[in-house]
Amino acid sequence: MIENIQVIAFDADDTLFINEPYFDEAEEKFCALMSDYLSKQSLAQALFQTQINNLPLYGYGVKGYILSMVQTAYEVSNHTVSTKVMEKIIEIGKDLLTKPVVLLDGIEETLQQLHGKYKLVVATKGDLKDQHRKLHLSGLGAYFHHIEVMVEKEELDYEKLLKRLEIEPENFLMIGNSLKSDVLPVLNIGGTAVHVPFHTTWAHERIDHEIVHNNFYSVEKTSELMTLLDL
Amino acid sequence: MIENIQVIAFDADDTLFINEPYFDEAEEKFCALMSDYLSKQSLAQALFQTQINNLPLYGYGVKGYILSMVQTAYEVSNHTVSTKVMEKIIEIGKDLLTKPVVLLDGIEETLQQLHGKYKLVVATKGDLKDQHRKLHLSGLGAYFHHIEVMVEKEELDYEKLLKRLEIEPENFLMIGNSLKSDVLPVLNIGGTAVHVPFHTTWAHERIDHEIVHNNFYSVEKTSELMTLLDL
Repeated sequence: MIENIQVIAFDADDTLFINEPYFDEAEEKFCALMSDYLSKQSLAQALFQTQINNLPLYGYGVKGYILSMVQTAYEVSNHTVSTKVMEKIIEIGKDLLTKPVVLLDGIEETLQQLHGKYKLVVATKGDLKDQHRKLHLSGLGAYFHHIEVMVEKEELDYEKLLKRLEIEPENFLMIGNSLKSDVLPVLNIGGTAVHVPFHTTWAHERIDHEIVHNNFYSVEKTSELMTLLDL
Repeated sequence: MIENIQVIAFDADDTLFINEPYFDEAEEKFCALMSDYLSKQSLAQALFQTQINNLPLYGYGVKGYILSMVQTAYEVSNHTVSTKVMEKIIEIGKDLLTKPVVLLDGIEETLQQLHGKYKLVVATKGDLKDQHRKLHLSGLGAYFHHIEVMVEKEELDYEKLLKRLEIEPENFLMIGNSLKSDVLPVLNIGGTAVHVPFHTTWAHERIDHEIVHNNFYSVEKTSELMTLLDL
Protein backbone atom coordinates (compact mmCIF):
# COMPACT_ATOMS: atom_id res chain seq x y z
CA MET A 1 0.00 0.00 0.00
CA ILE A 2 1.17 3.53 -0.80
CA GLU A 3 1.18 5.91 2.15
CA ASN A 4 2.08 9.51 3.07
CA ILE A 5 1.37 10.91 -0.39
CA GLN A 6 0.50 14.60 -0.64
CA VAL A 7 0.91 15.31 -4.33
CA ILE A 8 -0.05 12.98 -7.18
CA ALA A 9 1.33 13.95 -10.58
CA PHE A 10 -0.13 12.55 -13.78
CA ASP A 11 1.72 12.38 -17.04
CA ALA A 12 -0.49 13.71 -19.86
CA ASP A 13 0.23 12.03 -23.21
CA ASP A 14 -1.03 8.44 -23.30
CA THR A 15 -1.77 8.60 -19.57
CA LEU A 16 -4.66 11.10 -19.50
CA PHE A 17 -5.40 11.14 -23.22
CA ILE A 18 -4.30 9.58 -26.51
CA ASN A 19 -1.14 10.97 -28.10
CA GLU A 20 1.27 8.49 -29.69
CA PRO A 21 -1.27 7.14 -32.22
CA TYR A 22 -1.57 10.68 -33.63
CA PHE A 23 2.20 10.86 -34.11
CA ASP A 24 2.15 7.41 -35.73
CA GLU A 25 -0.52 8.66 -38.11
CA ALA A 26 1.53 11.80 -38.92
CA GLU A 27 4.58 9.65 -39.58
CA GLU A 28 2.55 7.48 -41.98
CA LYS A 29 1.55 10.60 -43.90
CA PHE A 30 5.13 11.89 -43.94
CA CYS A 31 6.43 8.55 -45.27
CA ALA A 32 3.73 8.49 -47.95
CA LEU A 33 4.67 12.03 -49.06
CA MET A 34 8.35 11.11 -49.27
CA SER A 35 7.97 7.61 -50.71
CA ASP A 36 9.80 8.58 -53.92
CA TYR A 37 13.03 8.89 -51.97
CA LEU A 38 13.27 6.09 -49.44
CA SER A 39 11.42 3.10 -48.02
CA LYS A 40 8.98 3.71 -45.21
CA GLN A 41 11.29 2.05 -42.74
CA SER A 42 14.31 4.12 -43.76
CA LEU A 43 12.28 7.34 -43.69
CA ALA A 44 10.96 6.58 -40.22
CA GLN A 45 14.51 5.85 -39.08
CA ALA A 46 15.86 9.08 -40.62
CA LEU A 47 13.06 11.14 -39.05
CA PHE A 48 13.67 9.57 -35.65
CA GLN A 49 17.40 10.29 -35.89
CA THR A 50 16.76 13.92 -36.87
CA GLN A 51 14.37 14.31 -33.95
CA ILE A 52 16.90 12.93 -31.50
CA ASN A 53 19.66 15.13 -32.92
CA ASN A 54 17.41 18.17 -32.61
CA LEU A 55 16.23 17.46 -29.05
CA PRO A 56 18.92 19.62 -27.41
CA LEU A 57 17.81 22.54 -29.58
CA TYR A 58 14.06 22.04 -29.98
CA GLY A 59 13.05 19.94 -26.98
CA TYR A 60 9.89 17.83 -27.11
CA GLY A 61 6.56 18.48 -28.76
CA VAL A 62 4.80 19.04 -32.04
CA LYS A 63 6.59 22.16 -33.32
CA GLY A 64 10.00 20.53 -33.02
CA TYR A 65 8.53 17.45 -34.72
CA ILE A 66 7.35 19.55 -37.67
CA LEU A 67 10.77 21.20 -38.00
CA SER A 68 12.42 17.77 -37.89
CA MET A 69 10.10 16.50 -40.64
CA VAL A 70 11.03 19.50 -42.81
CA GLN A 71 14.74 18.92 -42.21
CA THR A 72 14.47 15.17 -42.87
CA ALA A 73 12.63 15.92 -46.13
CA TYR A 74 15.41 18.03 -47.57
CA GLU A 75 18.15 15.79 -46.23
CA VAL A 76 16.83 12.46 -47.55
CA SER A 77 15.90 14.04 -50.90
CA ASN A 78 19.41 15.42 -51.29
CA HIS A 79 17.90 18.90 -51.32
CA THR A 80 15.57 18.21 -54.23
CA VAL A 81 12.22 17.88 -52.46
CA SER A 82 9.62 20.33 -53.78
CA THR A 83 8.21 23.29 -51.94
CA LYS A 84 4.76 21.71 -52.29
CA VAL A 85 5.94 18.78 -50.18
CA MET A 86 7.30 21.21 -47.57
CA GLU A 87 3.89 22.84 -47.43
CA LYS A 88 2.19 19.52 -46.97
CA ILE A 89 4.57 18.72 -44.10
CA ILE A 90 3.60 21.96 -42.39
CA GLU A 91 -0.04 20.96 -42.84
CA ILE A 92 0.57 17.54 -41.28
CA GLY A 93 2.02 19.40 -38.33
CA LYS A 94 -0.80 21.90 -38.00
CA ASP A 95 -3.23 18.99 -38.17
CA LEU A 96 -1.46 17.39 -35.18
CA LEU A 97 -2.05 20.62 -33.24
CA THR A 98 -5.80 20.44 -33.79
CA LYS A 99 -6.45 16.77 -33.09
CA PRO A 100 -9.38 15.95 -30.81
CA VAL A 101 -8.54 15.08 -27.23
CA VAL A 102 -9.63 11.52 -26.45
CA LEU A 103 -9.56 10.53 -22.79
CA LEU A 104 -8.25 7.14 -21.77
CA ASP A 105 -10.74 4.74 -20.23
CA GLY A 106 -11.70 5.47 -16.64
CA ILE A 107 -9.35 8.41 -16.17
CA GLU A 108 -12.08 10.89 -15.25
CA GLU A 109 -13.60 8.58 -12.63
CA THR A 110 -10.13 8.10 -11.13
CA LEU A 111 -9.55 11.85 -10.91
CA GLN A 112 -12.98 12.38 -9.39
CA GLN A 113 -12.13 9.95 -6.61
CA LEU A 114 -8.68 11.42 -5.93
CA HIS A 115 -9.78 15.06 -6.14
CA GLY A 116 -9.90 16.76 -2.75
CA LYS A 117 -7.86 14.01 -1.09
CA TYR A 118 -4.52 14.92 -2.73
CA LYS A 119 -3.05 17.86 -4.58
CA LEU A 120 -3.26 16.67 -8.19
CA VAL A 121 -0.95 18.09 -10.86
CA VAL A 122 -0.16 17.30 -14.48
CA ALA A 123 3.56 16.74 -15.09
CA THR A 124 4.35 16.38 -18.76
CA LYS A 125 6.94 17.04 -21.42
CA GLY A 126 5.93 18.35 -24.82
CA ASP A 127 4.88 21.62 -26.33
CA LEU A 128 3.79 24.22 -23.79
CA LYS A 129 0.95 25.66 -25.87
CA ASP A 130 -0.25 22.27 -27.11
CA GLN A 131 -0.28 20.66 -23.66
CA HIS A 132 -2.33 23.52 -22.25
CA ARG A 133 -4.70 23.26 -25.23
CA LYS A 134 -5.15 19.53 -24.70
CA LEU A 135 -5.71 19.81 -20.96
CA HIS A 136 -8.28 22.53 -21.57
CA LEU A 137 -10.13 20.49 -24.20
CA SER A 138 -9.93 17.34 -22.06
CA GLY A 139 -12.30 18.87 -19.54
CA LEU A 140 -10.01 17.53 -16.80
CA GLY A 141 -8.51 20.91 -15.88
CA ALA A 142 -10.70 21.39 -12.82
CA TYR A 143 -9.29 18.29 -11.13
CA PHE A 144 -5.74 19.61 -11.24
CA HIS A 145 -4.09 22.27 -9.12
CA HIS A 146 -1.96 23.15 -12.15
CA ILE A 147 0.00 21.79 -15.08
CA GLU A 148 3.80 21.57 -15.14
CA VAL A 149 5.25 21.35 -18.63
CA MET A 150 8.76 20.05 -18.05
CA VAL A 151 11.77 20.49 -20.35
CA GLU A 152 12.95 16.98 -19.51
CA LYS A 153 11.84 14.28 -17.12
CA GLU A 154 15.16 13.37 -15.58
CA GLU A 155 16.09 13.23 -11.93
CA LEU A 156 17.14 16.87 -11.77
CA ASP A 157 13.87 17.95 -13.37
CA TYR A 158 11.85 16.05 -10.78
CA GLU A 159 13.98 17.53 -8.01
CA LYS A 160 13.16 20.99 -9.32
CA LEU A 161 9.50 20.06 -9.53
CA LEU A 162 9.47 18.95 -5.88
CA LYS A 163 11.20 22.17 -4.88
CA ARG A 164 8.51 24.16 -6.67
CA LEU A 165 5.82 22.08 -5.00
CA GLU A 166 7.64 22.44 -1.68
CA ILE A 167 7.31 18.76 -0.77
CA GLU A 168 9.66 15.86 -0.01
CA PRO A 169 10.11 12.90 -2.40
CA GLU A 170 8.35 10.52 0.02
CA ASN A 171 5.20 12.60 -0.35
CA PHE A 172 5.25 12.46 -4.15
CA LEU A 173 3.54 9.93 -6.41
CA MET A 174 4.00 9.96 -10.19
CA ILE A 175 1.66 8.13 -12.56
CA GLY A 176 2.45 7.58 -16.22
CA ASN A 177 2.96 5.30 -19.17
CA SER A 178 6.71 5.78 -19.62
CA LEU A 179 9.04 3.69 -17.50
CA LYS A 180 11.92 5.87 -18.64
CA SER A 181 10.38 9.27 -17.92
CA ASP A 182 7.61 8.72 -15.40
CA VAL A 183 9.01 5.89 -13.30
CA LEU A 184 12.80 5.49 -13.15
CA PRO A 185 13.83 9.08 -12.32
CA VAL A 186 11.07 9.36 -9.70
CA LEU A 187 12.21 6.15 -7.97
CA ASN A 188 15.81 7.33 -8.15
CA ILE A 189 15.09 10.49 -6.19
CA GLY A 190 13.05 8.69 -3.53
CA GLY A 191 9.54 9.12 -4.85
CA THR A 192 6.87 6.54 -5.64
CA ALA A 193 5.80 5.66 -9.19
CA VAL A 194 2.89 3.81 -10.75
CA HIS A 195 3.24 2.59 -14.30
CA VAL A 196 0.10 2.40 -16.45
CA PRO A 197 1.23 0.94 -19.78
CA PHE A 198 -0.19 2.22 -23.06
CA HIS A 199 -0.32 -0.07 -26.09
CA THR A 200 2.25 1.93 -28.06
CA THR A 201 5.35 3.82 -26.88
CA TRP A 202 7.70 6.17 -28.74
CA ALA A 203 11.08 4.47 -29.33
CA HIS A 204 12.82 7.23 -27.35
CA GLU A 205 10.78 6.35 -24.24
CA ARG A 206 11.49 2.62 -24.23
CA ILE A 207 13.82 0.85 -21.82
CA ASP A 208 15.05 -2.70 -22.06
CA HIS A 209 15.16 -3.89 -18.47
CA GLU A 210 12.74 -4.85 -15.74
CA ILE A 211 12.19 -2.58 -12.77
CA VAL A 212 12.20 -4.03 -9.28
CA HIS A 213 11.81 -1.46 -6.53
CA ASN A 214 9.87 -1.14 -3.28
CA ASN A 215 8.22 2.08 -4.44
CA PHE A 216 7.30 0.82 -7.88
CA TYR A 217 3.83 -0.38 -8.88
CA SER A 218 2.33 -1.35 -12.20
CA VAL A 219 -1.37 -1.43 -12.95
CA GLU A 220 -3.48 -2.11 -16.03
CA LYS A 221 -5.90 0.75 -15.40
CA THR A 222 -5.71 3.94 -13.33
CA SER A 223 -8.82 2.80 -11.43
CA GLU A 224 -6.57 0.28 -9.66
CA LEU A 225 -4.91 3.24 -7.95
CA MET A 226 -7.75 3.30 -5.43
CA THR A 227 -6.70 -0.08 -4.04
CA LEU A 228 -3.04 0.93 -3.94
CA LEU A 229 -3.95 4.09 -2.05
CA ASP A 230 -6.44 2.23 0.17
CA LEU A 231 -9.34 4.49 -0.87
CA MET B 1 6.71 53.06 -1.87
CA ILE B 2 5.75 49.45 -2.60
CA GLU B 3 4.80 47.39 0.45
CA ASN B 4 3.61 43.90 1.43
CA ILE B 5 5.31 42.15 -1.48
CA GLN B 6 6.14 38.45 -1.05
CA VAL B 7 6.85 37.35 -4.61
CA ILE B 8 8.68 39.37 -7.26
CA ALA B 9 8.37 38.03 -10.80
CA PHE B 10 10.74 39.11 -13.53
CA ASP B 11 9.98 38.90 -17.20
CA ALA B 12 12.92 37.31 -19.06
CA ASP B 13 13.27 38.60 -22.64
CA ASP B 14 14.56 42.19 -22.72
CA THR B 15 14.15 42.43 -18.94
CA LEU B 16 16.84 40.00 -17.73
CA PHE B 17 18.66 39.58 -21.05
CA ILE B 18 18.63 40.76 -24.66
CA ASN B 19 16.08 39.17 -26.98
CA GLU B 20 14.30 41.42 -29.46
CA PRO B 21 17.50 42.53 -31.24
CA TYR B 22 18.16 38.86 -32.11
CA PHE B 23 14.71 38.56 -33.68
CA ASP B 24 15.29 41.82 -35.56
CA GLU B 25 18.54 40.36 -36.89
CA ALA B 26 16.77 37.13 -37.94
CA GLU B 27 14.10 39.15 -39.71
CA GLU B 28 16.79 41.07 -41.61
CA LYS B 29 18.28 37.79 -42.79
CA PHE B 30 14.87 36.45 -43.77
CA CYS B 31 14.08 39.59 -45.77
CA ALA B 32 17.46 39.42 -47.52
CA LEU B 33 16.84 35.77 -48.48
CA MET B 34 13.41 36.60 -49.88
CA SER B 35 14.27 39.93 -51.50
CA ASP B 36 13.47 38.60 -54.99
CA TYR B 37 9.80 38.45 -54.10
CA LEU B 38 8.86 41.49 -52.06
CA SER B 39 10.24 44.64 -50.48
CA LYS B 40 11.69 44.38 -47.02
CA GLN B 41 8.78 46.26 -45.55
CA SER B 42 6.18 44.02 -47.21
CA LEU B 43 8.05 40.87 -46.19
CA ALA B 44 8.27 42.03 -42.59
CA GLN B 45 4.56 42.81 -42.64
CA ALA B 46 3.69 39.41 -44.16
CA LEU B 47 5.83 37.58 -41.61
CA PHE B 48 4.26 39.49 -38.75
CA GLN B 49 0.77 38.69 -40.02
CA THR B 50 1.62 34.98 -40.37
CA GLN B 51 3.02 34.95 -36.84
CA ILE B 52 -0.11 36.55 -35.42
CA ASN B 53 -2.36 34.17 -37.38
CA ASN B 54 -0.36 31.20 -36.08
CA LEU B 55 -0.29 32.31 -32.43
CA PRO B 56 -3.40 30.30 -31.47
CA LEU B 57 -1.73 27.19 -32.86
CA TYR B 58 1.97 27.73 -32.17
CA GLY B 59 2.05 30.14 -29.25
CA TYR B 60 5.15 32.27 -28.63
CA GLY B 61 8.82 31.50 -29.13
CA VAL B 62 11.47 30.60 -31.65
CA LYS B 63 10.08 27.34 -33.06
CA GLY B 64 6.77 28.95 -33.98
CA TYR B 65 8.74 31.83 -35.48
CA ILE B 66 10.73 29.45 -37.70
CA LEU B 67 7.55 27.72 -38.87
CA SER B 68 6.00 31.11 -39.62
CA MET B 69 9.07 32.12 -41.65
CA VAL B 70 8.79 28.89 -43.68
CA GLN B 71 5.08 29.47 -44.30
CA THR B 72 5.59 33.13 -45.24
CA ALA B 73 8.31 32.08 -47.69
CA TYR B 74 6.05 29.78 -49.66
CA GLU B 75 3.09 32.11 -49.47
CA VAL B 76 4.80 35.29 -50.66
CA SER B 77 6.67 33.39 -53.41
CA ASN B 78 3.41 31.92 -54.67
CA HIS B 79 4.81 28.46 -53.88
CA THR B 80 7.91 28.91 -56.02
CA VAL B 81 10.58 29.47 -53.35
CA SER B 82 13.42 26.94 -53.55
CA THR B 83 14.14 24.21 -51.05
CA LYS B 84 17.57 25.81 -50.53
CA VAL B 85 15.87 28.93 -49.19
CA MET B 86 13.74 26.77 -46.88
CA GLU B 87 16.91 25.21 -45.55
CA LYS B 88 18.46 28.60 -44.94
CA ILE B 89 15.34 29.65 -43.03
CA ILE B 90 15.70 26.62 -40.76
CA GLU B 91 19.33 27.63 -40.21
CA ILE B 92 18.32 31.19 -39.27
CA GLY B 93 16.00 29.63 -36.72
CA LYS B 94 18.56 27.24 -35.29
CA ASP B 95 20.97 30.14 -35.03
CA LEU B 96 18.41 32.03 -32.89
CA LEU B 97 18.34 29.04 -30.53
CA THR B 98 22.09 29.22 -29.94
CA LYS B 99 22.55 32.96 -29.46
CA PRO B 100 24.65 34.06 -26.51
CA VAL B 101 22.80 35.30 -23.47
CA VAL B 102 23.66 38.93 -22.78
CA LEU B 103 22.50 40.30 -19.43
CA LEU B 104 21.01 43.77 -19.22
CA ASP B 105 22.94 46.35 -17.25
CA GLY B 106 22.77 46.03 -13.49
CA ILE B 107 20.35 43.11 -13.45
CA GLU B 108 22.62 40.80 -11.49
CA GLU B 109 23.30 43.39 -8.80
CA THR B 110 19.56 43.97 -8.47
CA LEU B 111 18.88 40.27 -8.05
CA GLN B 112 21.68 39.95 -5.51
CA GLN B 113 20.07 42.65 -3.39
CA LEU B 114 16.56 41.19 -3.63
CA HIS B 115 17.59 37.58 -3.11
CA GLY B 116 16.65 36.25 0.32
CA LYS B 117 14.25 39.14 0.96
CA TYR B 118 11.57 38.01 -1.48
CA LYS B 119 10.67 34.85 -3.37
CA LEU B 120 11.96 35.65 -6.85
CA VAL B 121 10.57 33.92 -9.92
CA VAL B 122 10.92 34.30 -13.68
CA ALA B 123 7.57 34.73 -15.45
CA THR B 124 7.92 34.68 -19.20
CA LYS B 125 6.25 33.70 -22.43
CA GLY B 126 8.21 32.07 -25.22
CA ASP B 127 9.62 28.67 -25.99
CA LEU B 128 9.85 26.36 -22.96
CA LYS B 129 13.16 24.77 -23.92
CA ASP B 130 14.74 28.02 -25.10
CA GLN B 131 13.75 29.99 -22.00
CA HIS B 132 15.24 27.32 -19.73
CA ARG B 133 18.40 27.32 -21.86
CA LYS B 134 18.73 31.08 -21.62
CA LEU B 135 18.12 31.20 -17.88
CA HIS B 136 20.70 28.48 -17.39
CA LEU B 137 23.30 30.26 -19.54
CA SER B 138 22.53 33.61 -17.91
CA GLY B 139 24.00 32.39 -14.64
CA LEU B 140 21.01 33.98 -12.87
CA GLY B 141 19.24 30.71 -12.10
CA ALA B 142 20.39 30.58 -8.49
CA TYR B 143 18.59 33.83 -7.65
CA PHE B 144 15.22 32.44 -8.67
CA HIS B 145 12.95 30.00 -6.90
CA HIS B 146 11.83 28.76 -10.32
CA ILE B 147 10.87 29.78 -13.84
CA GLU B 148 7.28 29.92 -15.05
CA VAL B 149 6.95 29.75 -18.81
CA MET B 150 3.44 31.04 -19.47
CA VAL B 151 1.28 30.30 -22.52
CA GLU B 152 -0.04 33.86 -22.46
CA LYS B 153 0.32 36.82 -20.13
CA GLU B 154 -3.28 37.85 -19.79
CA GLU B 155 -5.28 38.36 -16.61
CA LEU B 156 -6.40 34.76 -16.39
CA ASP B 157 -2.81 33.55 -16.81
CA TYR B 158 -1.64 35.73 -13.94
CA GLU B 159 -4.53 34.54 -11.80
CA LYS B 160 -3.43 30.97 -12.42
CA LEU B 161 0.16 31.94 -11.62
CA LEU B 162 -0.89 33.43 -8.27
CA LYS B 163 -2.92 30.32 -7.51
CA ARG B 164 0.16 28.18 -8.18
CA LEU B 165 2.26 30.47 -6.02
CA GLU B 166 -0.48 30.43 -3.38
CA ILE B 167 -0.37 34.19 -2.81
CA GLU B 168 -2.79 37.12 -3.10
CA PRO B 169 -2.46 39.80 -5.80
CA GLU B 170 -1.47 42.46 -3.24
CA ASN B 171 1.62 40.40 -2.41
CA PHE B 172 2.72 40.14 -6.05
CA LEU B 173 5.08 42.44 -7.94
CA MET B 174 5.79 42.00 -11.66
CA ILE B 175 8.75 43.60 -13.39
CA GLY B 176 9.11 43.75 -17.15
CA ASN B 177 9.57 45.69 -20.35
CA SER B 178 6.12 45.09 -21.85
CA LEU B 179 3.28 47.37 -20.78
CA LYS B 180 0.85 45.04 -22.51
CA SER B 181 2.06 41.76 -20.99
CA ASP B 182 3.93 42.61 -17.81
CA VAL B 183 2.02 45.63 -16.54
CA LEU B 184 -1.64 45.99 -17.59
CA PRO B 185 -2.94 42.49 -16.75
CA VAL B 186 -1.11 42.53 -13.39
CA LEU B 187 -2.65 45.89 -12.43
CA ASN B 188 -6.06 44.64 -13.56
CA ILE B 189 -6.02 41.71 -11.17
CA GLY B 190 -4.85 43.82 -8.23
CA GLY B 191 -1.11 43.32 -8.35
CA THR B 192 1.72 45.83 -8.59
CA ALA B 193 3.84 46.34 -11.70
CA VAL B 194 7.12 48.07 -12.50
CA HIS B 195 7.87 48.89 -16.11
CA VAL B 196 11.52 48.89 -17.20
CA PRO B 197 11.48 49.99 -20.87
CA PHE B 198 13.80 48.38 -23.41
CA HIS B 199 14.86 50.34 -26.48
CA THR B 200 12.99 48.10 -28.92
CA THR B 201 9.65 46.31 -28.54
CA TRP B 202 7.93 43.73 -30.77
CA ALA B 203 4.92 45.30 -32.52
CA HIS B 204 2.61 42.75 -30.89
CA GLU B 205 3.62 43.98 -27.42
CA ARG B 206 3.00 47.69 -28.01
CA ILE B 207 0.07 49.65 -26.61
CA ASP B 208 -0.97 53.15 -27.60
CA HIS B 209 -2.14 54.70 -24.37
CA GLU B 210 -0.64 56.00 -21.14
CA ILE B 211 -1.04 54.06 -17.91
CA VAL B 212 -2.09 55.87 -14.77
CA HIS B 213 -2.59 53.62 -11.76
CA ASN B 214 -1.73 53.67 -8.07
CA ASN B 215 0.14 50.37 -8.31
CA PHE B 216 2.09 51.26 -11.44
CA TYR B 217 5.71 52.39 -11.47
CA SER B 218 8.17 53.05 -14.26
CA VAL B 219 11.95 53.11 -13.86
CA GLU B 220 14.88 53.48 -16.22
CA LYS B 221 16.96 50.76 -14.58
CA THR B 222 16.09 47.82 -12.35
CA SER B 223 18.50 49.19 -9.71
CA GLU B 224 15.85 51.85 -8.98
CA LEU B 225 13.71 49.08 -7.55
CA MET B 226 15.65 49.33 -4.29
CA THR B 227 14.27 52.81 -3.67
CA LEU B 228 10.74 51.76 -4.57
CA LEU B 229 10.98 48.83 -2.16
CA ASP B 230 12.72 50.96 0.51
CA LEU B 231 15.76 48.66 0.63
